[in-house]
This record gives sequence, structure tokens and C-alpha cells, in this order.
Amino acid sequence: MDAISKLIKPRSVAIIGASADLNKTAGRPVSYLRKHGFDGDIYPVNPRAEFIDGLPCYPDVASLPAVPDVGIVLLGAERAHLAVRDLAARGTAAAIVLASGYTETGAEGARRQKELIEAAGAMRLLGPNTIGLVNLTDNIPLSASGALEMEHFPVGSIGVVSQSGGILGAFLSRAAARGIGLSKLISTSNEVDLELADFIDHLADDEATRVIALYVETIRNPEKFRAAALKAARAGKPVVAFKIGRSEAGAKAAVSHTGALAGADRMYDALFRQVGVIRAQTFGDLLDIPAALSTARVLKGRRVAILTSTGGAGTLVSDSLGVSGFDTPAPDEATAERLRALQTGDHAALDRNPIDVTLAGLQPDLLRGAINTLLDSPSYDALVIIVGSSSLAMPELMVGAIKDCLPNSDKPVLAYVSPHAPDLAALLNQRGVPAFTAPESCTVALEAMLQASTWTPGATAEALPAPVDVADFPAGSLDEAQAKQLFSRFGLPCVRERVVESAAEAEQAARELGGRVVLKILSGQITHKSDVGGVAVNVPAEEIGARLARMAADVQAATGTTPQRFLVQEMVSGGTELILGMHRDPLGTAVLLGMGGVTAELFKDTAMRLLPPGSGLSRDEALALAKDLKTWPLLDGFRGRPKADVDALVGAIVAFSRMAAQMGERLIEAEINPVFVLTEGQGVRAADGVVVLGA
Amino acid sequence: MDAISKLIKPRSVAIIGASADLNKTAGRPVSYLRKHGFDGDIYPVNPRAEFIDGLPCYPDVASLPAVPDVGIVLLGAERAHLAVRDLAARGTAAAIVLASGYTETGAEGARRQKELIEAAGAMRLLGPNTIGLVNLTDNIPLSASGALEMEHFPVGSIGVVSQSGGILGAFLSRAAARGIGLSKLISTSNEVDLELADFIDHLADDEATRVIALYVETIRNPEKFRAAALKAARAGKPVVAFKIGRSEAGAKAAVSHTGALAGADRMYDALFRQVGVIRAQTFGDLLDIPAALSTARVLKGRRVAILTSTGGAGTLVSDSLGVSGFDTPAPDEATAERLRALQTGDHAALDRNPIDVTLAGLQPDLLRGAINTLLDSPSYDALVIIVGSSSLAMPELMVGAIKDCLPNSDKPVLAYVSPHAPDLAALLNQRGVPAFTAPESCTVALEAMLQASTWTPGATAEALPAPVDVADFPAGSLDEAQAKQLFSRFGLPCVRERVVESAAEAEQAARELGGRVVLKILSGQITHKSDVGGVAVNVPAEEIGARLARMAADVQAATGTTPQRFLVQEMVSGGTELILGMHRDPLGTAVLLGMGGVTAELFKDTAMRLLPPGSGLSRDEALALAKDLKTWPLLDGFRGRPKADVDALVGAIVAFSRMAAQMGERLIEAEINPVFVLTEGQGVRAADGVVVLGA
Repeated sequence: MDAISKLIKPRSVAIIGASADLNKTAGRPVSYLRKHGFDGDIYPVNPRAEFIDGLPCYPDVASLPAVPDVGIVLLGAERAHLAVRDLAARGTAAAIVLASGYTETGAEGARRQKELIEAAGAMRLLGPNTIGLVNLTDNIPLSASGALEMEHFPVGSIGVVSQSGGILGAFLSRAAARGIGLSKLISTSNEVDLELADFIDHLADDEATRVIALYVETIRNPEKFRAAALKAARAGKPVVAFKIGRSEAGAKAAVSHTGALAGADRMYDALFRQVGVIRAQTFGDLLDIPAALSTARVLKGRRVAILTSTGGAGTLVSDSLGVSGFDTPAPDEATAERLRALQTGDHAALDRNPIDVTLAGLQPDLLRGAINTLLDSPSYDALVIIVGSSSLAMPELMVGAIKDCLPNSDKPVLAYVSPHAPDLAALLNQRGVPAFTAPESCTVALEAMLQASTWTPGATAEALPAPVDVADFPAGSLDEAQAKQLFSRFGLPCVRERVVESAAEAEQAARELGGRVVLKILSGQITHKSDVGGVAVNVPAEEIGARLARMAADVQAATGTTPQRFLVQEMVSGGTELILGMHRDPLGTAVLLGMGGVTAELFKDTAMRLLPPGSGLSRDEALALAKDLKTWPLLDGFRGRPKADVDALVGAIVAFSRMAAQMGERLIEAEINPVFVLTEGQGVRAADGVVVLGA
Repeated sequence: MDAISKLIKPRSVAIIGASADLNKTAGRPVSYLRKHGFDGDIYPVNPRAEFIDGLPCYPDVASLPAVPDVGIVLLGAERAHLAVRDLAARGTAAAIVLASGYTETGAEGARRQKELIEAAGAMRLLGPNTIGLVNLTDNIPLSASGALEMEHFPVGSIGVVSQSGGILGAFLSRAAARGIGLSKLISTSNEVDLELADFIDHLADDEATRVIALYVETIRNPEKFRAAALKAARAGKPVVAFKIGRSEAGAKAAVSHTGALAGADRMYDALFRQVGVIRAQTFGDLLDIPAALSTARVLKGRRVAILTSTGGAGTLVSDSLGVSGFDTPAPDEATAERLRALQTGDHAALDRNPIDVTLAGLQPDLLRGAINTLLDSPSYDALVIIVGSSSLAMPELMVGAIKDCLPNSDKPVLAYVSPHAPDLAALLNQRGVPAFTAPESCTVALEAMLQASTWTPGATAEALPAPVDVADFPAGSLDEAQAKQLFSRFGLPCVRERVVESAAEAEQAARELGGRVVLKILSGQITHKSDVGGVAVNVPAEEIGARLARMAADVQAATGTTPQRFLVQEMVSGGTELILGMHRDPLGTAVLLGMGGVTAELFKDTAMRLLPPGSGLSRDEALALAKDLKTWPLLDGFRGRPKADVDALVGAIVAFSRMAAQMGERLIEAEINPVFVLTEGQGVRAADGVVVLGA
């Protein structure tokens, strides 16, 4: 058994710093282990007590009668490392350190954290600053969470990993109150050793776990996270994550435009999406979605039947589903026929959806008949059953009918509980029917079920082509001409251009490039050339000399420096302007595509993809990236516009992504702004660009 | 006392069709009246019973010993009208009819409904198909809702009007479970007589009601609703509405573009906004927002302090607030100083926000000190207090501290309850601290409090100027020239143009209009002129004859009809293209403004305002309308663009709105598409338009 398995399912536990006062936090772990039925050995360690809760107490770790699988360290940050050192010396598999006062509190804390890590040596460490873990499958609470004061927890198949201890407690008590069964809960907190990914990896192998729920503050090791999430996906176990820190996103100061558009939070979105992690949008969803997924029922489409005995609540659910693009079609004729044969109440509405059996329809046979009919119907992919106030007086009626019918179908069945009826909702959850108290939660749950059933891991990353030699480019900001030379090296089509230093050279270049050209200053320093008068478009060859002189004067006036070099470029007319850029972040490297033009800019119309480790984007992913743009129709013949050369755009995205992948850390920033996408068959042209290289 | 007041606070109630079997729905009203302490007279009416629940039972309405203030009719739809007739004959103030089976079930039901209305005569009627009403202020339940099985309901200041009976029950039980006090609940359902607006109007006068919550399926009488909502606003009572039917919005088939852009749901948004009704986005919000508003505390800004003893939950709330644009600044130096003087736990984080006192800080004096300090601080407009798992064992600690401090400040104080702790949450609500179990609910509540504190009724509608004579315009679709003549009549600047029928006339017109012109076919039938080759721009005067001949041929080929008349228009160059239109709907007439161009169209960038009754928009409202556009910056000098003539645009919007207001029903459709907004001082020009007039 590996150390993590021993940590989660120990046969013996030492509690260092256990208190005989069960009202103190340090009194809780021993008490909880006994209360919730741990049947292994418990060794309280406390030099000032002889017995704790009736168990013999040991003065120190050295005196323990056997090597514990796990040590729970309840000492403060000043002394925790001593206990950790002793546990490691005895050969303990893992220690859980609850103390706070480490890196989260500043420099002195950071020193203590270093000390703690050194003390652990090869022993695995959970925490510090953790509330511990709770293994409900095997009745093993290794935690001081006050939530364990509750007497009983439903055991189920949702595994939880939380980077906050308080959230673990909230999750535990909320799930219990709703009758939603959990398997394991682990709070990782400071993650000096064991982290999120370790437990995702473990739970992917855990037979008792079917769904993994994550409370994420930060992902310290994206590669490990990616691997663990993909392992869970391959094991058929959906991973659901709630990530906080959405509002910190903010724009970063960056030379390129795309740097500012890629907020940290969007990077998480991209990462989650690429590894099939379902993102919970609210904290409540982090329990609701796993509750639905833990039924292991597969949602195959968007058509939902709503069975109700009360009008208003059915409408609420129907409206919420409709807003999210679910269909609630009326029963097909055969289904309506079967429903009518059930002889429900006078004013029952059986040929509409919600299917309303009215109060008169609240009879066992009738409900069973209606539920079976709707589950059989080829018109529906799922069923939502409304539980109204009338069920309060007869909870077994509705719950019993649903329970009887569940085995007859593998379609998802959800319940919406309209009145305040926590016991009824818990009963439903315990019987395998996810029960929700918000209409929107039914919709969110069904959305997630659809996402879980349709997501497939993308093709494995293709190997990069033979490396391109870029050793000759200097470090620092490249000038525009150099930037495009770099792009060209990776196969990106660029506008034709010439570097010139005089009016005569400019005129000759203009004639070679077709007569009318773009004239720009060339500088590695000035990135916003237009702002200083350094750009002129549609300049005829015969006027370019005069224009160049005027530009030199304007730039001199604006910047104090006389430009020495200029760029003469072919005019690109027509086409759609886009921005192609990249963004580096602790989570990885992203390629960004944005629509150009002020209007799209106002709507921040950008899309992004994280590069798979060591690889560029595939053509499929590049195309999907372009289609993510809200303004994608502009490239696709919207309103009679000519279709854009999407093939060439896809090629450019792939080439750009390979450049980012191959150059790695050396490529600090890169952006093509704009890239012109011409009409079908005419290709693309990188017209301007920014590149910053590292040494 | 008026009939509605008698209905809500009767001194005597007759229950027609009361059942002696208290398990039947018809047995409930008598039972509930007695159980919840009604101290007036109760007259059960049932020819087959002598006593019901110990009360003498009467064979019919005629035999009642006195005229009841209210009659609750529990008979089925076949017989309910007979009881209603008898009640009316006795001079009863109002009847409540619970039966279903009326218009909601088809033609036969509609007939019965008509019969019912006739039977009521001058007596007021609530329902049919209603679950009745519950007056908690005075212990008077006039309802069969199963939610009344609960023993006790907290009495408070939230009045509820629901168009669904089931929702009334759900609301009642959910509020009670959370310790949120209500005043009156009324289910209006089919609204054959008394409707939403009648009860908003009544509750605006009701001393026990401070906030009004509405569950809306449809507004049958927008003018009455508007007046009632404004009355509530003037009385300082916020109205909060949850409106279902959002997914039915859908685009309507319409000649004009704007007709399709104005969904029914957006009309409700516009109406609510104009009368200061706060729209609840989820059903849960319909309870959460009133709970916050019922404290009558005023939120004056967006700066929120978060006080916590547990990290995770504080971060959850902070993150949710941040996403919605609230600020959670760190304490100012003086505040931090006062907090530090409280001597909280070792690792307390007092100079950050959330302000974390840690577990060690959970002591009465310390909590009071921290709460008072934060409420005193000039850095904060509101305080959110996090209740963690540790409070489960000592509920009075946190609740007591908050309660002690509340009177010291009039800033809003909210609580977020992290673990499952319904009793604690109820205790907080009862003590006047709105307590929420979702972090997002804290944010929603604060948003609503801000909305309630900043909304002011707009200026009273200005009288329309002297009516414009438009009797000379024909019914039906106007051609483009006529449409612009109509626009001009109302003072809207249009492009200069000439109607021509020959090449010679066209050439002369072109020379008069400045050389290069736009040439279009002129037809009341063909609205999409471009699609049939009927538009040419930038045509020089000398080529216009040939161009006209080619256009005639193209249109003939496309439509089978040879155009006889053409329009020659001045070219408008530069400027920003917008769309100005209107939409008529049962809720009223809306003026719509949309940004032109395909990109803005992809983002459906439109804004709208409902016309106040009998009036156009004020200049202020017209400007606010323009600023509602996401692309407003395009008119406002974005990225160095010249500023647009917003003054002239505002004038055009006002003129257009007056046209819509004055012409009323006669103006079936009207749209200017595009209207060019030129640079500052250059005005606007209506360049094309659609008008459909009624007879």
C-alpha cells in the first residue's frame, strides 16, 4: 500500500498533542475517530495525560507501542516540526499538520514551513494549515472539523478535495443535511507536499469514488493536475471544480494586447476545458453537479419532460431550462395517449409539458404510470419531477413511486422540491434521485450531465516538426521587420516589405511592391507607431519621399528622436483583421485569437487555447478556436460577405502555436496585430507584430 | 374600509363547501383559520354537516346569521358561480374562488369563467384557480395551501403577491424555515377581477409592509401596474419581481429589424426599470432580496468589509462580490489600528479584507469590538459577517455580538452561513440580520440594496408638443420617400433626396445634390432593396442615367416588376450608422436604438425604453438610452475617433419617440435604418426608413 493509501485508510493513528478536554479543538480528533467508528488503533500522545477518552496516552512519539500509519499533529507551528521529525524517524507513512502560521503569515512563517518540510524528510505530509481528511467509506475521520459533531453522514460516491479546511467542513455538513453521500474529503491547504493532483490521482483509482469535486484556490503544478484529471476522465470519473479568484483576473501590464486579454481566470477555464473538468460556476453547484453525476446516468440529449402536480413550480423549471437551451416538447401522440389512459384529474394537462397530473393525480399507481410512460417515451432524454407542497403530508407517495420506476430506465431523473421540505429532499437523494431546491440547479445539473457525456479527450498532442533555427535573433524587443522575419521562419505568411533608410530607397521599394504602399517607422522601442505619427497608408510611390520626410519630422516632434529606418509594405486591401497572440502564465502557454476592429474590441471578442505540453495546436483545435469567436460568422460568409480563407487562418494559428511551443521560455511575448484573413484561396498576411525574446 | 381591505382583514369569513374531513383540501381553510388564531367569526357552509371542527355549519349562504366580509368558495367549477351569486346577493365584500377549470382549460372553461364574473356582479373576486391569501400580520389565513400545516410563521414586513398558488405555498414555507417574516401573501392566479396591481396598491398603504415581492407570469394591465409600482416607490417601499417566461421571448416576425430585437422579456425589463421595480433573476433571489431590503438599511456605496474566523468562506464571499464590481478594500490605517488593539489570535489577518480574527477571535468582547470597528470605519459601506462551522456549537456567541452592535450603525449588515446551520440562519434573520447560505446571494442582496437606494422616479412625463398633422399619409406600408416625409414632419433630419422617374430627372437631381449620390428604387412593397439590386451608392451625376437603366433591369429580373420610380439621395460620408425603431407590445410602446454594422449586429447591441403613458422620451432618457449601448464609446471619441453629434442624436430620439407617442395605434411600425450620426456639430441624417400605418 502506498503512503497516500495509508494516509487515507490507516490501520493506526497517532494524535500528537491530543487534549483530554473534548471541547477543545485538540480534543476533537480522538473523539471523532471513536464516535464515527474507526476500528484501528488510536494512540493519543500528550506528556501531561495518562488516558484520553479512556485510551492510554503516550508521552511522546518514541514511546508508541507500534509505528502508526498516520500521525495527526495538533501542536502549534512553533513545535509541530518536532513531532513531524519524530514521526518520520519512526517510519510513519504520513503526517497531517493542522497548525497555521506558515507561509500564509509572512517571512517568519515561511521559515517555519521550510523547517517543517525538512523535518518530514521522506514521510508524506498533508498540510500544514489543513483541517485534515475524512474517509467516510471506511469510517475514518482524521480531522478536527467541527462539522464532525454531526452524528451521521450518508456514505456515497463523491470524493472531495479542497484547498480550504473551512470549505471541507461546510461541504461535509451541507451534503449530510441533503442526504448526499460522500466517499472521501481531503483538505490540502498549504500543500507543502501532498497536493490537489495527488488526491485526484488517488480518487481516480478509488473504487468507492465515482465523481470528484474540487475546491480550488490555485493549481501549483499544472502538469500533474492535467495528468491526474485525464486519468480520472479515462476512469470514467467526472471531475467538477469550483475555482475562486475570478475577480482577481484583472489585466496585466503587457507590451502585447493579448497579454491583457488573457486573465488568469480564463487560463483556468482553458485548462479545465482541455482536460474535461466541469467548472462549477457557484459554490452551490459544486455539490449539486456531483450529486447529479454520482447517479452515473447518462444524458443523451436536450429534451426534458417535467412531471408536476402543481403549475407554478413546473413553469419555474421549464423556464429555467428554456433559458439554457433545453427543449421541453409536448408529449408525442403515443405518449399522450398512454398518459390519458391513466385517468388523472379533471383538469390535468397531459398533452403539454410540464405534464400536470394535478392534485387528483397524486396516487401511487397513477404516478408510477406517468413516470414509466415518460421514461419510456422516445421524446425525452430526461425527466424532472416536481415535488409540491401536497407531498409534505405524504412523503412516501412521490418518493416511493420514483423509486419503483427508476430501475426501468437509465435516463436521468431529477427532482425539484418546491416547498421547504429538507427531509423529503434528503430521502430522494438517498434513493438515488438528485433533488434540488432551486429551479436553476436542475438546469445546471443537466448541463453538467450533458457535458460529462459528450466530452472526449482530444487527440494526443502531435510531435513538433523539426526545430526551426532561431539562434540568430537578438534578445529584447524585436523591431517590426525582425518580428515578421521570425514569424516567416515558422511558416507564417507576412506582407511583403522592405526596410529603407532614405526617400530614394522608399520610392524604389514602393514601385517594387505595387505602387501604393504603407509607410511606417521601424523601431524596436516605439510600439504604438500610429500614436506618434509613424504610420501612413495608401501612399503612392511618387509621393513617398515627401511623406517620409514629414513622418520623420512628426515622430521627431512627438518622441524627440528622429527615426532612421522605415518600412515600406505592400497594401493589403479587403479581408478581415484579426489578432493572433500568446500569453504565458503559471498554468501554461495560451494562444489567443481576437477579432480586430474597434467594435469587436469593445466586446472583447477573443478566444484562447492552452498549448498541450511540448506541442502546438492541432488543426482541429485551431479551427475550434476560430469558431469560438462570437464574430466567427464574419469569417464564414455572414450576410452575403465573401467567405474568408479559414484554411489559411487555421494554418497560421497552428504555425504560431508551434513557434510558441518550440521557443518556450525564450519567447516572452509574441503577437501579430493585425493578421489579415483574405477571401477564400487568398491566404492570410501578418501585417504587423510584436516580439520580445529572452536571452 | 374598502373591499380589498375587508378581503385582507375580514372580521368574518364564510367557507362554502367546507368539509368536515380535515384531511381533504376542503377541510383545510376552517382548520387553518382556527389553528393560526383567527379571532373573527367563521361560518362553515355545507348542507351535509351540522358542525365542522366544533363550529355550527350552515346549509347555504342565505342561512348565514350575518353578512360575511369574505366568502371562500371551495366548490368545483361547475357550482362555484352559484355560491358566488349567493354571496354577492348577501352583500359580501369579496369572494375567493379556489376551483380550477376555467380559461386555463379551454373553451368550456372560458364559458364558466364568464358565468362566474357575471355571478359576482359588484362583489370583488380573488381567483379563480387561486390558493387564496394569508394575512400573517393579523393571523388570518384564507387559504387551503398545504404550507399552512406548519405550526408557526414569523411575522414580518415582506408582502407577497403571486400569480401562482403553488409558489405562494413554497414561498411561505421557505420563508418560515429561514426565519424571514412576511406580512401578507396573496395568490391572484386567473385574475378575473382583482389583480397584481390592486394588491401592490393595497400593500403600498399597508403599515405592516415594508417591501413587496411579486411572482409574475404576465402583467394584464400595464398602466395600473405602473401606477401601483410608482405609488409603492413614493411610499419608500421597494418592489421586487421575479418574472417567468424569459425563454419564450423569441423574435417575432416583423417588417422592421427592431421588432425582432425587442423580445417580450426585454419589455418587462424596461417596464420594471422605469418604475423602479427590482428584478429578481432567480426564484431564490425573490426571497433573498426582500429579506435584505426589509431591514430598511440603506447601502450608500460599493465598499464592503468581510469579517470572518475562517479563511475559505470569507474568500468565497469576497470573490463573488469582486465579480460583481464591489470593492473589498483593506482596512484604513486607523481601522487596522483599532482592530489590532483587540488582541485577536496569533495568526489573525487584520490588515487585509476579509478581516480574519481566526478561531481565537471567537470571543464575545472581541467580536463586538471588531464589528463596531468595521461599522464605524469610513472605509466601508456595509459589513458581511461569515458564520463558520465553529459557531455551530455556540450559536449565541456570533448572533449575540451582531445583535449588540446593530443599533450602533445604520449600515447594512449581512451574514453568510458557511456550514449547514438552518437554526442559526433563522436566528440571524429573526434578529434583523439577513443571513444567506450562498455567497452569491450576499452579492445579489447588496446589488439590490444599492439599486433601491439609488433609484429615483424619472421626471414626470413632459406634455407632447402641439400635435403634428399627419392625416394626409395613407394607410399601409409607406414608400421610403413618404417614410422620410413623415419623419421630417416630426422634426427628424433626413438626407436630401428627390423622387425621379427618368434618367434625365435623375441626372438633374444628382447635380443639385452635389454630384455623387445614392440611387435606389422607390417602392412601398420591396423593403429589402439591396437584395434585388435596387441600391447603388457613390454614383456620379454623369453616370446615373446608365446606372438607373441597369438597376431597372436587375430589379425586373429579380422581382418580375419593372420599377417606375427612383430615389436620388445625397451621399452621407463618415459618421456612425445606428438604427432607431419602435416596438409595440401589450406592455406598451418601446423605442429601440441599435448600433449599425455587422459586428454590432452579431452582438445584438441594442437598448430600449418604454414610452411613458401619453408622452415621448425626455432628453435625459434619450441620452441614457444611447449610453446603454455597449458600443456607446464609438460615439464618444473611443480610441481617438472624433466625437459624434450626440446632441443631435438625442434630439432625433426624442423626436422619434414623440412621433410614436402622438401617432399611437396608427403607427404600426416605424424604423430608421440607418440613421447617420455625424461628428459633433454636424447633426444626424435619417437615410432610409420603414413605416407601416394603420387606417
